[in-house]
Amino acid sequence: MLSKGTWAMDFHAMDFDGYLKQAAADTDAAMDRFLPPEIERPGTIHAAMRYCVFAGGKRLRPVLCIAAAEACGGKRQDALPAACAVELMHTYSLVHDDLPCMDDDDLRRGRPTCHKVYGEGMAVLCGDALLTEAFAVLARSKSVEMIAELASAGGSRKLIGGQVLDLEGEGKSLSLEELIRIHEAKTAALLTTSIRLGAMSAGADEAQIAALIKFGHALGLAFQVLDDILDVTQTTENLGKTAGKDTAVAKATYPAVMGLEESRAEAARLTAEALEALAVFGENGARLREIAGRMLLREF
Amino acid sequence: MLSKGTWAMDFHAMDFDGYLKQAAADTDAAMDRFLPPEIERPGTIHAAMRYCVFAGGKRLRPVLCIAAAEACGGKRQDALPAACAVELMHTYSLVHDDLPCMDDDDLRRGRPTCHKVYGEGMAVLCGDALLTEAFAVLARSKSVEMIAELASAGGSRKLIGGQVLDLEGEGKSLSLEELIRIHEAKTAALLTTSIRLGAMSAGADEAQIAALIKFGHALGLAFQVLDDILDVTQTTENLGKTAGKDTAVAKATYPAVMGLEESRAEAARLTAEALEALAVFGENGARLREIAGRMLLREF
Repeated sequence: MLSKGTWAMDFHAMDFDGYLKQAAADTDAAMDRFLPPEIERPGTIHAAMRYCVFAGGKRLRPVLCIAAAEACGGKRQDALPAACAVELMHTYSLVHDDLPCMDDDDLRRGRPTCHKVYGEGMAVLCGDALLTEAFAVLARSKSVEMIAELASAGGSRKLIGGQVLDLEGEGKSLSLEELIRIHEAKTAALLTTSIRLGAMSAGADEAQIAALIKFGHALGLAFQVLDDILDVTQTTENLGKTAGKDTAVAKATYPAVMGLEESRAEAARLTAEALEALAVFGENGARLREIAGRMLLREF
Repeated sequence: MLSKGTWAMDFHAMDFDGYLKQAAADTDAAMDRFLPPEIERPGTIHAAMRYCVFAGGKRLRPVLCIAAAEACGGKRQDALPAACAVELMHTYSLVHDDLPCMDDDDLRRGRPTCHKVYGEGMAVLCGDALLTEAFAVLARSKSVEMIAELASAGGSRKLIGGQVLDLEGEGKSLSLEELIRIHEAKTAALLTTSIRLGAMSAGADEAQIAALIKFGHALGLAFQVLDDILDVTQTTENLGKTAGKDTAVAKATYPAVMGLEESRAEAARLTAEALEALAVFGENGARLREIAGRMLLREF
């Protein structure tokens, strides 16, 4: 028989499942409105864009954006352009990352990658269009500061810079410091920006934004450590993308550099750091805390 | 012996050469300030971006942007972010267009294309970074409307849409109507946007912007007709890119669809249409008129 406490926890968990589901659904509905319909010419690119965007992703970045906005007292409606923009930017980076001249991946979220379905040329253009659309959608927020923030997170010093270091690091033995630099640029920057844009859409103050940047940074690194761990420990079927890929191409990963157990400990340490940064939000930070906890629970 | 009239014309021509040169130099100086330096990590991508941007282009789009701003009474300084942004967007589209999975071109402006020098993966990322930088730079204009305009011109309905139609039309026999649709999307849209952003940076009124859109549209199509003509009539050396490429891949071009002489006539007709649209600017439209005239003179 379950104790009262367990029931309460289960109820809370169900409640939070509903929150995550609704935030993702609201983002999907907004992206569906913002993206050109497939019937609009040229139909192929619009079909390709939708194929990549509506691929059953967890919408982690939009959910973080929305939860950050709500933690700062903002309205979800006002956070949606930013939530969609970060997801479009994330999706474009996956499409280009999967190309034969980059990571050369055939599977993504359990389905054939964009270039496998639409051809390489179309996949390049599809990524370009998703990136451009991210800025078109964010322009709906009417905030130049938010656009500048997204352009910075997606630029050659951060998101793209991370891909470059990743590309150049393949087959080389990287130090932990170099590995962290790659992941800060490649993953943590866009996660932090998702949170930051949510806060900006809510008109958050400097102290709130500073705390959220700290949170996002630690969370982003934790997320990448977990991704590396999953690549080693999960099967292709469970993962929805080709497993063991990183090892196959001798890519520097946390498990490769510091071992599996140390990597798990590092993920836990980073998650604790992220949770600590949320202290200033008190009860308003509950959902962000929960999201961070769930990100860790994927594996443990 | 030269008549007085001829001297005046020569002096005017020299004067205008100076104007074009200075507008291009001001754009280059601004782009040099805006783009990350090569010494900044990751150096490869910053070197690649600068290799593609500083390749001796004529800066037609920035010059149009600046001349439109000045025709509307604006200051060059205020037009520079837009002038740089359109050139960065144009450059990214060339880098991706040259990729093996797209037009597969080895030469651009007389030099090896980006992927020939830096590899395919880096060329994809370089294009991505230039596109992202276009929005970062334009954010300096502090105008969300201008950012929305650039995102629209660069999106799947226009610039990228044109590339898609182009890609899908290869080897097929296109009607003149389809050909025009491709070029409106691929070339005219960004030229029109260059002019429009210049006008917006100057705080132009609706009538001025409407006239400039008409001008830009006709000019953009004229420019594409001329480009097609040059591909047929010029050598690779003169052109700085692989000549006869369009014919070799059975691409629909104006000369292929309507013949060379008809194409020349069409270019002249479109140029006249462009000049007519400038009438409302009176003497203030002189530089835009001159630019249009020179674009035609490339060939005749």
